[in-house]
Amino acid sequence: MFEEVEVEAHVYPTEDIEKVKIAMLNLVADLEFDAFDKGDYIILTGKTKSKKALQRLYELFRGQAILDTARMILEEGTFGEEIIFKVHKQVAYAGKVNFNEESPLGPITIIIRSKNPYKLIKWLAPRTKDGVPIE
Amino acid sequence: MFEEVEVEAHVYPTEDIEKVKIAMLNLVADLEFDAFDKGDYIILTGKTKSKKALQRLYELFRGQAILDTARMILEEGTFGEEIIFKVHKQVAYAGKVNFNEESPLGPITIIIRSKNPYKLIKWLAPRTKDGVPIE
Repeated sequence: MFEEVEVEAHVYPTEDIEKVKIAMLNLVADLEFDAFDKGDYIILTGKTKSKKALQRLYELFRGQAILDTARMILEEGTFGEEIIFKVHKQVAYAGKVNFNEESPLGPITIIIRSKNPYKLIKWLAPRTKDGVPIE
Repeated sequence: MFEEVEVEAHVYPTEDIEKVKIAMLNLVADLEFDAFDKGDYIILTGKTKSKKALQRLYELFRGQAILDTARMILEEGTFGEEIIFKVHKQVAYAGKVNFNEESPLGPITIIIRSKNPYKLIKWLAPRTKDGVPIE
């Protein structure tokens, strides 16, 4: 249903890069990391083609009861074969999803590459009625 | 010329608290630290009554040629017997002073307690003419 998931965040000098990796892995599994030193901060990217990559987001959207918000965010973030959205870095370190981009130290950007993004969104964040997925 | 210097910053989950302490010590010497866990972040405070506390800022204001800016910031931040100002946390980690408060991860707040704040400012950030202190 998707070809690849990529995750990106800025890592500032007072941050611990290992904690930012944990924040990313809390949301997307099996990431392989790369880091680019821009001087004032490091750009940390993680990529994966693993089939399990979106399992954690699937669980969190349901467990946190945020399917409707997630669907809206994902649909608004669909551009051709990419779905792009941002989550709160500090909340991700705590193992949860928060779509508020105004996060101290910047957001984590998640990019899902899919040939059929709307089919993926129906699976990842389906419509619900009375809290129960109906798609 | 001053009774105490206190420094305060928020430490977010993805930060390394030891790096934030380094950022503070880069600007104010001999700090003794305390930390208060607020849940979403930790409030890290440092305090010192050491006579050498302001030596680094004294040197940086001159070395970075920012005496006029520093004096203005210190004067604007004088409230009774306290001088309060904020510096960029990431720049402090790199060992320099930047008065821009819009710092990723929040600023470092510095509070100088002095019975004669204007005398202290004259010493710490005197007026200059052609770059040379004249007070």
